[in-house]
Order: sequence, then structure tokens, then C-alpha cells
Amino acid sequence: MAVYTRIGAEDMAAIVAAFDVGTLLSAKGIAEGVSNSNWLLEAQREGEEPRRFILTMYEERTEVEDLPFFLDLLDYLSARKCPVPRTIHDREGASYRLHEGKALALIEFLPGVSVSEPTPGQAHSVGAALAKVHLATADFPQRRTNTMGLATWQRLLDACGTDGLTAIHPGLAATVARELDHITRHWPQGLPEGVVHADLFPDNVLMLGEEVTGLIDFYFAATDLLAYDIAVTHAAWCFSDDGTRFDARISRALLEGYESVRPLQAEERAALPLLARAAAVRFLSTRAYDWMNTPEDALVTPKDPLAFARRLEFYAASENQALFGEPA
Amino acid sequence: MAVYTRIGAEDMAAIVAAFDVGTLLSAKGIAEGVSNSNWLLEAQREGEEPRRFILTMYEERTEVEDLPFFLDLLDYLSARKCPVPRTIHDREGASYRLHEGKALALIEFLPGVSVSEPTPGQAHSVGAALAKVHLATADFPQRRTNTMGLATWQRLLDACGTDGLTAIHPGLAATVARELDHITRHWPQGLPEGVVHADLFPDNVLMLGEEVTGLIDFYFAATDLLAYDIAVTHAAWCFSDDGTRFDARISRALLEGYESVRPLQAEERAALPLLARAAAVRFLSTRAYDWMNTPEDALVTPKDPLAFARRLEFYAASENQALFGEPA
Repeated sequence: MAVYTRIGAEDMAAIVAAFDVGTLLSAKGIAEGVSNSNWLLEAQREGEEPRRFILTMYEERTEVEDLPFFLDLLDYLSARKCPVPRTIHDREGASYRLHEGKALALIEFLPGVSVSEPTPGQAHSVGAALAKVHLATADFPQRRTNTMGLATWQRLLDACGTDGLTAIHPGLAATVARELDHITRHWPQGLPEGVVHADLFPDNVLMLGEEVTGLIDFYFAATDLLAYDIAVTHAAWCFSDDGTRFDARISRALLEGYESVRPLQAEERAALPLLARAAAVRFLSTRAYDWMNTPEDALVTPKDPLAFARRLEFYAASENQALFGEPA
Repeated sequence: MAVYTRIGAEDMAAIVAAFDVGTLLSAKGIAEGVSNSNWLLEAQREGEEPRRFILTMYEERTEVEDLPFFLDLLDYLSARKCPVPRTIHDREGASYRLHEGKALALIEFLPGVSVSEPTPGQAHSVGAALAKVHLATADFPQRRTNTMGLATWQRLLDACGTDGLTAIHPGLAATVARELDHITRHWPQGLPEGVVHADLFPDNVLMLGEEVTGLIDFYFAATDLLAYDIAVTHAAWCFSDDGTRFDARISRALLEGYESVRPLQAEERAALPLLARAAAVRFLSTRAYDWMNTPEDALVTPKDPLAFARRLEFYAASENQALFGEPA
């Protein structure tokens, strides 16, 4: 949560002019996005109503060569009535611009708030929205390798080392070794692939009541197993933040919402217990790495890796293997 | 620039309901305010247009007992057509509420951006807006002692110590001692008093073109010499950020703008050279203190005290004593 770069009002007005959205009326740096800077802008073309936008400046973690995938995806989904913000192209038709060496994109502002304690009705809507994205991207022409896949988790956890993981929690190193081995050996083959959001936490969903008004922050989106995206979303929504409490009602509502739009194949359902363990390892790996490698004076507070170690234990427990239902 | 406190969407909806502004449509933490947390909210009452607000949560530096002065002042000025945001009172008529032990106020959102490189036309407007505030508050019934006055500068600079000031710049300790002595001995008596903003930097002024759309952040406002407020605004607007370049055109425009609304008395004009040195010492004192006392992991980067040491040198130089014009 930070704004890493300062842009003066005069520069901001020039940026807004380059995107041809009229005169700048307001610009506020917003405390969103872990690795990018964001501003909420208002601008107005003569004779039109004022409009609002999110201006994103891509900092370290986003590769500029990936931006066409992320930004074209938003336009593709938006054109197919998925609740995602569309991008604003500049006067030359480009979906992003460079400003002092950094890439900038202007994205439609969507109303809605990110819930902290979802209701089953909200979880149902999120499941349905995710399924809609999965169906809509079936013919999306671009591919992007999931750079945050199994090999990366392994590398990040190796970098933490046995001592580092033990310092986070006694026994964590052994759990991680066991799980990485299990996941590698049982990774499912032949499941439906498509574009996955891969990071659909409540922070990345805007809602009004039970309606999803926006899925945002697609900067981990990639081509991968659709069922893995369900597993990530499950891990993100069905637990208390700290991972100590699992909510079975949210879990059921999320899956029912998803299947109300896209029924799971039997093989996908059968793979979900394994993919849920994988999703837990994915966030455990980045959180453990960031926990050990965030400088004390950083603008961002690292998130607790234990919250995902607890989810991992939950998903790995034998009594929870039937969580996702039996193949029909 | 930070949001210090997290408020979940459910709590935010309850806060908005208590202020009776309808249903929450959007809430973004904004990177504004050095010592308070701020959110840009949108809410809508049934059958009305959506409206925007700034929600401020007062953190450490603001005393809750001062809030009625600050908030009533906004309503008083707003009713007298000064460009300041009015406050929204809650269902019980209170101008602020407590949430988990911290005070919260809901304030009207105003359009406009804070300029980085003001033009003379903009400086003229800011001078005029300041004079309008000074005239409008002539009958404001509340008083507040300026807790950021000469005694406080002395205390903060004492706390820095000779070694601390010398570490910031060789010779700074001697300059500070000389100036504090000079200012104390020559502090003007009998000048017009009223409500001063006392912190009218470009960051605290919203503009659209050359129009001032909002004066904001009145949390240093107090009862003091009106001419001192002019001196603060002069120090804030007429130099490059780092204090190395003085812009005589901005200076002239600012003063002319002010006098287009409220002509200076001869005694005020005569006191301005001294008050400008005082204004420079005021910001030097807080910046030097913060420079030495900000923890390395703080969310806020301390501002360079040298920028105001340079302004102080400029104002103290004999060739600049006629800067504010001769008594008519």
C-alpha cells in the first residue's frame, strides 16, 4: 500500500492529455497495489460528463513486456461483459505509455468496495464471476506462461532454506518438503486450461451488496489450469485472514456460484484437493520469501506466511479431502 | 503520505450510515496528510446523485479537543463562500465521531489539483483566497492558541541541540540562535489578529487552472497575526522546493492578489520582513526536529530542513529587506 513515485500536477495534466480524456479535475494517490503506484483521477472532455480513472505506474515487479497480455485481457473481458475495467488507449492507440522510463496505463474506474468478511451470497457471486472469466477467455488469442508456478515456489522456498522456514515455524521446513514432493508427483494432467487470474483475493474484487462490480489487478494472470484458479480463489476467500478458521458455508457458496456458470468436469473436481494444497504452497512461498527479505524501512509490511501454512495443513488433512465433493 | 489504519468495507459502510449520506459506493485510502489517515469515499442517497467525501481519521498529531475549532471553521468559511470544504455532520448533529478510540470526520470532496510549479496567475488567486479567509473570520467566535508559535520553535530547536543542527549544516546552530534572538526582540505588537491557516503550502491548495477550488488541511489553524499567515504563504509559494531559487514574479503576484481583497496596513507591511524570517524558522524547526527523530522504518520520509534554512538566509539578507514594499 503505497505511492512510490511522485507525479506533479503539471505532469499529470500532460499525461491525461496524452490519453485524450479531457481536462484533469482531480488526482489522488491511492494506497492500493503492493508493487505499483496508483492514482484515482477525474477528467472531463468538453461537453461530456466527468469520468474517473485509475492511473497505474508499473514499478519493479511488473515486466513491461507482459503489459499487452494484461491490458488486452481487460479489454477482451470487458467487451464480453465480464465485470473488469477496460483500458483507455492513448492518442496513438497504445494501451500504455512510458513516463520517465516507467510504464503507465489508464484504466476505467469501477465503483464497489472490497469486503473483509464475505457473506455466502457474496462468495456465490465471486465464484460465478470467476467462471464467467474462464468461459469468456476460451478464445483469447494470447498466452502467458505462469511465472508464479511450481518451479518458482520451489525456488523461493529453497531460498528461504531450512533455517529460515524453521524460524517462521518449527516443522515448517519438513511440511514444505513433503508438500512440494507430493504436489510435484501428483500434478494433474489433461485438465482444461485457459486464462487464470491467479490472485483473486477479496482485495481484488469490488462489490456493491452481493453484486460483483469489478475484478481487478490481473497482474498475475497467465495461461494455466482453470481448476487451479478455483483453488486459489478458495484459499483466498474461505478462511479468516490468519488461516485459523475455515468457513464451510463460504466454501460451498463459492463452488456453487462457479458451477452455476461453468460446471466442473469430474477430473477437475478430483484434482481440487491437490490444487488447493498447491495454492496454499504458492502463497506460503512468496510470503515466506518476502517475510525474510523485506527491508525494515520498506513502505509495505510483509504478510504473515503462517496464514498460508495453516491453510496448507487444513487442505492436507485427510478429513478434508472430500471438501470439494465427490465426482458426480 | 500514508494510510495508518485499516478500515474494512463493512465498518466503512457503518460509518457512512452514521453520517447519513446513503449507501457506500466506493472507498479508497489516499496518500495524503502527513499525520492523519484519509479515504476518498463515494456514497449515494436513494433518489439523489452520488456524492464524494474525504473521510479523515485523526492520528497522533491532532488533539481531539481542537477538532471543533477546525471543523466549525470549515463550516463557517464555507457558509461565507470561501473555497473550503464543508463538514458533514452525523445523525446526531456531531461534526466528528469516535471509531475504535480515534476521531473521524467526513468532509466534502472538492475538485482540483495541487500545483507543483505555480504561475503568477495562480499565486495571485491564492493570495486573494487567503485574504478572503482573513476577512471572513473576523467575527469567528472561537479562538485557538497557536501551539506552533515562537516558544515551540525554540523548544524544538533546543531539542535538536548544537550538534544536531551542525550535522544538518555547518553554521546552522549559530544562524538559528541569532534569528531566534532577533525575532524574539522584534516581534511586532498591535497588528491585526484573526484566524490563520498557518500552513498554506501548494499541497494544501486545490486549483483548476488559475481558480482556487479548495483550501484544505486547516489542522494548524489558530488565532494569530494575519500578516504572519501571509509570511508563511510567501515562504511556501515563492521558492523552489529546495529553497535555492526565489521567484520575484510569484512573490509580487501573491501579495497583489492578497491586497486586491484586503489591503495591508502600513504596520503589517513593515513587519513582513521579520515575519518572513519567523515563518522560515517555524518550518526549519519542525523539519530539523523530524529529520533527527523520524525512525528509519517510518511510512513518511522527513522533509529536508535545509530547504528552510536557505529561505531563512534569503529573508535575513539585508538586500531583501525591501521585498514586501515600502509603507505607502
